Amino acid sequence: MRDSVCNVRYHGVAAYEIVAADGRRILLDPFFAGNPASLVKAEDFQRVDLILVTHAARDHLGDTPAIAKLTGATVLCGNEVQAYLRAMDVPASQIRPTAWGMRLEIAGFEIQTLECRHCSGATMPDGSFVSGIPLAFIIELGAGVRWYHPGDTSLFSDMRLQGELYQPTIGSLGIANPSGIADTRPGRKLTTDLSPREGVLAAQWLGLKTVLPCHYTDPDDPLVHQFQRCLADAKAAGESVPESVVLAPGDWISLDASGCIRRREKA
Amino acid sequence: MRDSVCNVRYHGVAAYEIVAADGRRILLDPFFAGNPASLVKAEDFQRVDLILVTHAARDHLGDTPAIAKLTGATVLCGNEVQAYLRAMDVPASQIRPTAWGMRLEIAGFEIQTLECRHCSGATMPDGSFVSGIPLAFIIELGAGVRWYHPGDTSLFSDMRLQGELYQPTIGSLGIANPSGIADTRPGRKLTTDLSPREGVLAAQWLGLKTVLPCHYTDPDDPLVHQFQRCLADAKAAGESVPESVVLAPGDWISLDASGCIRRREKA
Amino acid sequence: MRDSVCNVRYHGVAAYEIVAADGRRILLDPFFAGNPASLVKAEDFQRVDLILVTHAARDHLGDTPAIAKLTGATVLCGNEVQAYLRAMDVPASQIRPTAWGMRLEIAGFEIQTLECRHCSGATMPDGSFVSGIPLAFIIELGAGVRWYHPGDTSLFSDMRLQGELYQPTIGSLGIANPSGIADTRPGRKLTTDLSPREGVLAAQWLGLKTVLPCHYTDPDDPLVHQFQRCLADAKAAGESVPESVVLAPGDWISLDASGCIRRREKA
Repeated sequence: MRDSVCNVRYHGVAAYEIVAADGRRILLDPFFAGNPASLVKAEDFQRVDLILVTHAARDHLGDTPAIAKLTGATVLCGNEVQAYLRAMDVPASQIRPTAWGMRLEIAGFEIQTLECRHCSGATMPDGSFVSGIPLAFIIELGAGVRWYHPGDTSLFSDMRLQGELYQPTIGSLGIANPSGIADTRPGRKLTTDLSPREGVLAAQWLGLKTVLPCHYTDPDDPLVHQFQRCLADAKAAGESVPESVVLAPGDWISLDASGCIRRREKA
Repeated sequence: MRDSVCNVRYHGVAAYEIVAADGRRILLDPFFAGNPASLVKAEDFQRVDLILVTHAARDHLGDTPAIAKLTGATVLCGNEVQAYLRAMDVPASQIRPTAWGMRLEIAGFEIQTLECRHCSGATMPDGSFVSGIPLAFIIELGAGVRWYHPGDTSLFSDMRLQGELYQPTIGSLGIANPSGIADTRPGRKLTTDLSPREGVLAAQWLGLKTVLPCHYTDPDDPLVHQFQRCLADAKAAGESVPESVVLAPGDWISLDASGCIRRREKA
Repeated sequence: MRDSVCNVRYHGVAAYEIVAADGRRILLDPFFAGNPASLVKAEDFQRVDLILVTHAARDHLGDTPAIAKLTGATVLCGNEVQAYLRAMDVPASQIRPTAWGMRLEIAGFEIQTLECRHCSGATMPDGSFVSGIPLAFIIELGAGVRWYHPGDTSLFSDMRLQGELYQPTIGSLGIANPSGIADTRPGRKLTTDLSPREGVLAAQWLGLKTVLPCHYTDPDDPLVHQFQRCLADAKAAGESVPESVVLAPGDWISLDASGCIRRREKA
């Protein structure tokens, strides 16, 4: 993996693992236990420098408490996630609350917190319910690579403004729903928070060069196929579209200075 | 009521009852007890298939717990409303939490959850305070009729985007304040979350063909009259404006395939 | 201070004190105890008519419970701040909850509540966590002076819409971080919720004639200098920019009918 800016592994849903050239490791929304797509578990991680949690939801908070306690990693998150982590005995000294617009240097990375549009809520160990604002992040990975991680978001016009101001080069967008997780609630999901067509608009408005559709456990998901078709339709209509890379859970990719994918190792 | 797509009754504030041609019934923000405009009470409903709750506030949550338990209706709502309903002993199997952007099929209806701008907060039976994001809904009623129900919202530019993407044909907009409900809090409300002029902009940006001003108990409200004048002014200035229908609590309307009102039965 | 519309004193961070010509006094985000920049304390205030609290955070809620109980002032705030104040024994009759879009007359002032973009969360005396939506306010001070107070906010495009609809003439914008307050949390803040450059865009989009950069304890802050340079750059590039006034904590200013500063008394 020489000459790469960093290597990234996808673990299904919205869980990513970024390993910088110098060995620093960031976990994004590390949902492993209960995630049928994940090939890893919390105990597999020896070194984690930073965990980013976009919002309080089981499939994004995931194994954060266990990994934070195991590795001493700092957690960047919102106030309500901080309240949850404190209740799970994660030391306050490991938690950095942030909010939309704020730029921080943490674990040697510059990270911009940005607005996204979703909910963030969790039931605490004592049964009370906490909530707050969901966060998107742009991580400066060096050499012009800026990784956009929104967790979950719906479409909003200020994605254009974010694209202009922060120029993310590569990022994930949730356009599907995990399968293989029991859900006995009434109703049937037709789309997630971004429909496939809205996912294309989001990628265009943010100005991504490379888009990683996500929020699935199985890449052979009808909504993933629909996303790829919407991208192809947009391209055929003469629109500028990013390259889309559909990762299988466990896949590693390697990013070069252009923010594009140079190498890909199948799981 | 032959040939109609559905019939709709207004119950004051933001409470609507939609009865599909096949008899399925949806309640929107069913606030009856404590609502001086309501001619009905929770016990009057035998069949309810679905209840939509936009946000946790007394005048929108209303009689949801009682009606859900009485009829077995499914409730579509946010996480914090779910927490409240669970605390009121509504079975989990009847509650479907949703978030902005998500599209669901539920009780045979396709329903799009959309962003709106307000607060959602409630005091729980144990005295704790919960909050979350307020929801707007677009309900596909068949034959091209798409009903927009925002509960409470202030004005925001992405109403244009919502209009383009989801093309609601008819909808309610809160532009007044209920009278007849004791309020001992300091201060005097001059407008609600949408001023009358902003209500006109909202209706135009959403592209509604028919707008139902709401959030009043008495249709003879100064803010309702002001809304009608603002609409007339916009029309006189050459702008495209929707038809506005000021319903009295208890009124039934019947919608045809154009999304417009065909018949109206006075309360 | 003859012929002035009102006099205003800055207390550091986002704390302002507005004294109308007739003696009515408004406190905005009155953070005194624990604020190293503040020259006053809660007990110094005899008459306070109204307190505006933008959001639940230590550096904005500040001394609100103590001052409300001491002076009987009405507090305008969100639901979650209301829950916090009630837990601190502030009488319900003194609290007016509001939400985005609502216009109220309170203590003889017309006040428009507007959307801003931040979080609002607090730990209650019993250890539970509450949250809600952050509020911005525009206060009509007479003679065309409209004071914009957002507390904390990140940049968003609807600041243009707010500028068109409500035409604030003078306002504060948080573009720095307080110094002198111990913070043992990991990471280093590079910007606050508005970077200096974004602060200039916000001031332009809102159409402010006069901007007061804030959220510092020491006006000789690198981010304040950077804000002034960004403003100068924008002006040099031919853009329309507001007059910027960097206040030292304790400074009084006097506003005339043009919304501009007529007199300034050094602390």
